[in-house]
Amino acid sequence: MNSLFKEIGSEVDAELHRIFKARSDIPKKLLESMAYSTFAGGKRLRPMLVIASAESVGGDRKSAYPTAAAFELIHTYTLIHDDLPAMDDDELRRGMPTNHKKFGEATAILAGDGLLTLAFEVISEPQPNGHHIKPETQIKLLNRIAKAVGAEGTVGGQEVDMECEDSSGDIKKLEYIHTRKTGAMITAAVEAGGIIGGAGDEELSLLNIYGQSVGHAFQIVDDILDVTGNTEKLGKPAGSDEDRKKMTYPSLLGLEKSKKLADEMVDRAVETALKLKGDSKILVTIAKFIGERKH
Amino acid sequence: MNSLFKEIGSEVDAELHRIFKARSDIPKKLLESMAYSTFAGGKRLRPMLVIASAESVGGDRKSAYPTAAAFELIHTYTLIHDDLPAMDDDELRRGMPTNHKKFGEATAILAGDGLLTLAFEVISEPQPNGHHIKPETQIKLLNRIAKAVGAEGTVGGQEVDMECEDSSGDIKKLEYIHTRKTGAMITAAVEAGGIIGGAGDEELSLLNIYGQSVGHAFQIVDDILDVTGNTEKLGKPAGSDEDRKKMTYPSLLGLEKSKKLADEMVDRAVETALKLKGDSKILVTIAKFIGERKH
Repeated sequence: MNSLFKEIGSEVDAELHRIFKARSDIPKKLLESMAYSTFAGGKRLRPMLVIASAESVGGDRKSAYPTAAAFELIHTYTLIHDDLPAMDDDELRRGMPTNHKKFGEATAILAGDGLLTLAFEVISEPQPNGHHIKPETQIKLLNRIAKAVGAEGTVGGQEVDMECEDSSGDIKKLEYIHTRKTGAMITAAVEAGGIIGGAGDEELSLLNIYGQSVGHAFQIVDDILDVTGNTEKLGKPAGSDEDRKKMTYPSLLGLEKSKKLADEMVDRAVETALKLKGDSKILVTIAKFIGERKH
Repeated sequence: MNSLFKEIGSEVDAELHRIFKARSDIPKKLLESMAYSTFAGGKRLRPMLVIASAESVGGDRKSAYPTAAAFELIHTYTLIHDDLPAMDDDELRRGMPTNHKKFGEATAILAGDGLLTLAFEVISEPQPNGHHIKPETQIKLLNRIAKAVGAEGTVGGQEVDMECEDSSGDIKKLEYIHTRKTGAMITAAVEAGGIIGGAGDEELSLLNIYGQSVGHAFQIVDDILDVTGNTEKLGKPAGSDEDRKKMTYPSLLGLEKSKKLADEMVDRAVETALKLKGDSKILVTIAKFIGERKH
């Protein structure tokens, strides 16, 4: 990660801390559980995409922070629920005990519910830093995000992923799952930045293509790392997808073809970003960073 | 229930059907699971409160339907998650198998997540029936609701309720739990109707008192019914709170004092409703209905 990533990352963290500090009425254990997973060392990829995308259409970075933080809250909720015993039953995440291992299953379920709801609260509140977003923009944003992360998007992807465990599938099924489970939220983060930055229809459709491409690349690389990475570096047991007989890009396409597809997606993202009129430097850097993770 | 309740109930159900029909991209089993609990014979109390409250300040009933339906989606999500094995571990709800008993735990968790997210999607979308709500009203509504049902409200109440099982407590603790777990959403439903109907500050503060009163009465009556009701009528095992050593109003105050407190709350709700300038007939009927359930 370069210094720009670090700078944005720490600004997003400051925003997340501000959000938690303003909620003094959350019961202690629940708050600890919500904060534990939120500050567990995530890459802040989705918040960065929101901010980078706002800048790429000439928007103001600061007005994107609350929404950027909201995406991290939503992402964190999906991780907590996905790790639950009834779902992937994972004990480690980024080298640390998963939320339910640390706080118990009931609190983990509620922490996820609380984070998801908090995200919508944050997006719908008056912007705290004077960087006002108009109500019609807020509502458009919120609707776009709710659609992306709900039963037709992220939640639906996880459902089909659960239904498919231990069964063989094809590339079409895999794409169906990932488009929803990972892709929908990443694409929504990119579009959200565009909406905040006041993007027109043409820019929004470029951002949509960029978002779909990096989302696709991200998932392929994640699957590749599960085969080639080591447990220490991943913070979770390498090969866990294979142990669980999950469909992955390498298992369906082979490792080389998967790497090639990831490269193609990164190239498409970069080309699309360069067509934007504003400063698309960060969008380009993020796309390249996603591609480089696999080496 | 009188005929007015039936009429509103079937209009709310029609709105809920419209919402599900418009989401053709929800995976089949997930959709079935979400719809199963949504149409499991709930009383539609929260939607009725939204609608009654909108009318009590002179608002248009139809413009309240999407938000009314959204409250039922949120309420249904809390029931599904509360019934999970890690929470109350209930097998029956309204005489039918609970969601996780019927669809499995993973799908039940996801159905809850999907319903919560769908509620925010519904409130933030352009109103379908031409009964437009202004974006600034939509965003105010949404923020009020998110705050009420999140970690400082419903979710936080459930957390503290979980932490308190099998432990003795006092009336202060019980009020803390119920103000959040049940009260926050009921009060928010009443205020939401007011916001939609264009209530001023004074009306909103009357609606807040009404909401708190009926919320309080509702919970006391629920606790009383758990002691005095029979399993068939309740659709869940009577005495289950006692079996679980849960704090309840009857266990802390005794049955007679609990009934008296419920009556006081109903009276306060009715008096407050009558101070509103619009048609508060339905608000009064709902408060009385809540009080009568205990006989």
